[in-house]
Amino acid sequence: MRAAFHAGLDELVSHLARMVRLAGEMMTNASIALHQNDLALAALVVDDYDQIKGLYTSLERRCVALLALEAPVAGDLRVVVSTVHALGHAQRMGNLARHVAMIAQFKRPNPMTSGTVRPVLARMSLLASQLAADAATAIEYQDPLSGCRLAVADDEVDALLRHLFGILFAKDWSDGVEPAVNAALIGRYYERFGDHAVAIARGVCYRVTGEISDGHAVRAAGYFGEHRLPF
Amino acid sequence: MRAAFHAGLDELVSHLARMVRLAGEMMTNASIALHQNDLALAALVVDDYDQIKGLYTSLERRCVALLALEAPVAGDLRVVVSTVHALGHAQRMGNLARHVAMIAQFKRPNPMTSGTVRPVLARMSLLASQLAADAATAIEYQDPLSGCRLAVADDEVDALLRHLFGILFAKDWSDGVEPAVNAALIGRYYERFGDHAVAIARGVCYRVTGEISDGHAVRAAGYFGEHRLPF
Repeated sequence: MRAAFHAGLDELVSHLARMVRLAGEMMTNASIALHQNDLALAALVVDDYDQIKGLYTSLERRCVALLALEAPVAGDLRVVVSTVHALGHAQRMGNLARHVAMIAQFKRPNPMTSGTVRPVLARMSLLASQLAADAATAIEYQDPLSGCRLAVADDEVDALLRHLFGILFAKDWSDGVEPAVNAALIGRYYERFGDHAVAIARGVCYRVTGEISDGHAVRAAGYFGEHRLPF
Repeated sequence: MRAAFHAGLDELVSHLARMVRLAGEMMTNASIALHQNDLALAALVVDDYDQIKGLYTSLERRCVALLALEAPVAGDLRVVVSTVHALGHAQRMGNLARHVAMIAQFKRPNPMTSGTVRPVLARMSLLASQLAADAATAIEYQDPLSGCRLAVADDEVDALLRHLFGILFAKDWSDGVEPAVNAALIGRYYERFGDHAVAIARGVCYRVTGEISDGHAVRAAGYFGEHRLPF
């Protein structure tokens, strides 16, 4: 009975990692669609969001079933509760990738036409995709130190967002209001995407080492990690 | 034993409603600070976020303790799981209010100086605050129909955001790039704030009527409600 329960728990964690990896691939494709003006690829990303929704629904159902049928405690309970949190983060990551893809689909002129903004958003997109892949690996390997590693990479995303706003607000910005607003929103989507990846990785730390009783683990788990002004 | 458990559950729900109401009051004050250029009030909102963090930590701890010690099933389990979700939404609402307050604190010129943008953001702020208050009431009265009611009000927030982008992108916009980007971000924060309030209210519906087994309740609970292009 407990062996079957732990097999179920392992399967849950492995599906969660798959969902986070899918969100990362969606963001990679959304960024390529944006940078190469590839409308068909953007449409594929938008369609991929249905997979994210399906995974969310089925994995949340598994979490509730495990809680109802097995009444886990201690470390097992932490796995289920942190998975419930991580599902919300992974779903938002997929949705943010969809937002970027929809800008690629519908916004003319493409906000990537500005030569100064393009390399900044390209670097942000690479880091965002990498953060998702690293969060998935952290889940698979149950690595309690991954949260700190991801937070360092996420600091670069935050710094790039501030740099992006510096470019948009400079006196020599000549591409007009609409491309500036779109670039700002894309930057903000990458930044939020990175925050969610860090929160998932920190959830792994809580899962492996967590001490719910004093609440420090929850604070350390990064749910309140976003303290800086986002631009 | 079960009476004590249900008293604990009632207390949890009542604290959650208090947390959502606090997030709404923070957004009201952040909007007043923005519109009246009130730096002291903006600083108060930023400080209030500590209360949100404290409530999140203590309520999540209660949820985990209830799951570990009482192993609830059926409706009781739904209350705890939907509270775990709602805590995440309420924490994000407080954080979004903090974002608006920080723009009021640090952005010069104040993005509210544009005469065309000001009434649109004022209306959005009123609706956002009302959505939070309505979500708190929905929790207190366990009203399963509140989700639909809030979604209607939230549609107006979404329409106002599209209207705002229309103003910012029009040929006669003359206030420059930085106020436009800031106004766009504030609009986006109100829109996300409303989405979280709707998700909380729809969680009440799931809690009262939910059928986890087929997943429809979870889909209906609005976690994927944000399907439109946000601008």
